[in-house]
Amino acid sequence: MGVTAVPERRGAAFDEATAARPLGGGRFAVQPDERFAIGGVVNGGVLIASMLRAVLHGSPHPYPVATSAHFLRVAVPKPAEVHLTWLKQGGTAATARATLVQDEAPVIETIVTTGALADTGADISDAAAALSWTGEPPHLPPVSRCRSLPAGRGFTGQIDIRFDPATMGWLDGQPDGTPEMRGYLSLREDRDPDAYLLAVAVDALPPVVFGLGAVGWAPTVQLTWHMRNIPAPGRLRVAARCRHVSGGWFDEEAEAWDAAGHLVAQSRQIARVGRHERRA
Amino acid sequence: MGVTAVPERRGAAFDEATAARPLGGGRFAVQPDERFAIGGVVNGGVLIASMLRAVLHGSPHPYPVATSAHFLRVAVPKPAEVHLTWLKQGGTAATARATLVQDEAPVIETIVTTGALADTGADISDAAAALSWTGEPPHLPPVSRCRSLPAGRGFTGQIDIRFDPATMGWLDGQPDGTPEMRGYLSLREDRDPDAYLLAVAVDALPPVVFGLGAVGWAPTVQLTWHMRNIPAPGRLRVAARCRHVSGGWFDEEAEAWDAAGHLVAQSRQIARVGRHERRA
Repeated sequence: MGVTAVPERRGAAFDEATAARPLGGGRFAVQPDERFAIGGVVNGGVLIASMLRAVLHGSPHPYPVATSAHFLRVAVPKPAEVHLTWLKQGGTAATARATLVQDEAPVIETIVTTGALADTGADISDAAAALSWTGEPPHLPPVSRCRSLPAGRGFTGQIDIRFDPATMGWLDGQPDGTPEMRGYLSLREDRDPDAYLLAVAVDALPPVVFGLGAVGWAPTVQLTWHMRNIPAPGRLRVAARCRHVSGGWFDEEAEAWDAAGHLVAQSRQIARVGRHERRA
Repeated sequence: MGVTAVPERRGAAFDEATAARPLGGGRFAVQPDERFAIGGVVNGGVLIASMLRAVLHGSPHPYPVATSAHFLRVAVPKPAEVHLTWLKQGGTAATARATLVQDEAPVIETIVTTGALADTGADISDAAAALSWTGEPPHLPPVSRCRSLPAGRGFTGQIDIRFDPATMGWLDGQPDGTPEMRGYLSLREDRDPDAYLLAVAVDALPPVVFGLGAVGWAPTVQLTWHMRNIPAPGRLRVAARCRHVSGGWFDEEAEAWDAAGHLVAQSRQIARVGRHERRA
């Protein structure tokens, strides 16, 4: 997972950037962090991770099985709050509403359902718990044949992605003609994946429409992700595809698989096609 | 779309069952309808449709582009309310929080983002609006070779599904071994598809895990669906697949395509594997 010349505290930047400090009354203090910003705007997945810390703080179940997020405004690197309301706490699942608030306006509205996953003893019948099935994994070349981008300031300075060259033609002004993105993802600091990093991984690749030559900023309007397994240590394999683009909207479906070969997270988002000039 | 011996008012049952009457102050009266119940529990998609009517009542944009729903309790056929709060009304999208409340408890919690679709004049640059791309459509046999089930009371008496026989082996105690379902869907009454019927269509097929032999009741915990195009008149083609089953959880991704061959809706849900004995 990368060795830095000057060892830092394990996972320091990411865990600091996603911390949520309880203020009482369902309120939590969070600090959208410029170390995870792109062009002054803090990455949405990192903000979701901080909201999930607030939810899991008081959850009777350990994992964010289903997270629905609608993005209303961008967040900038200054203090914010998460406002949390529990709607139900049941034996199998618990559901909360959580809102990220900055400058007194809602920035991200979420609903989060927590539960247990496979190896944590779910409260179900044996036959149901035993049922196991998984579709085909994504195909990526070895890490050594992937393409990496220079670590800049902000998000790209924290997240290390090794891109499948077959999805990166857009970078050379020659889009591949298919709305797909694939790559290996890890933090540059020495920290293994968990639920919080999965929240980032499912929306960390360049927008799939870059593969069609639409390389402008493509704001996510809504994203849902599901945590399916507890990730093993090591790089995540992330693959994203698209099903439909029209009217300025596109969908993007991403999967994250862990180093042990398990599907650990799924997402689907709907986003706006970038307004900048197409390079195709 | 089917001719009945005794003509009814066009779309009477479905439009009545999904009506939302404004009460003022962001509250709407709805009536979960036994005509769309299964075993005394009203179908979730029909409830979502009534919530969408409340949202669209005051929306500056005409279509429910993104609907996130978390299911907390079941609804029974008696009066309920939708409580609506607008979080943002922007030029491209507007987002509301809507809660279905029955017996003073939240039954379904949703966030809905509305917007314009392709042919309604979206507020975007020409290049972004012009970008169009669609993946492979699902493959279904002709309607004449599909299998239909007898119209019972409740939901199956209202919704006409012609099933792809390749996904229906479970009905004869011989599951096909793949978690997929496909069929043509329409109302039995003479009413064309729209956003409200799409909300039903994306969760109307039998659970995909029936194809693995797990035929018990499989409650949906969370479902997100996206409306992508305005459906043409005629039967919808609906296809659902799964990516992963473990720990008692499974995902189900459905697409609805209209009679003109356009992808009109996408959904993904996470649900619990049925607790009943497996027939496989």
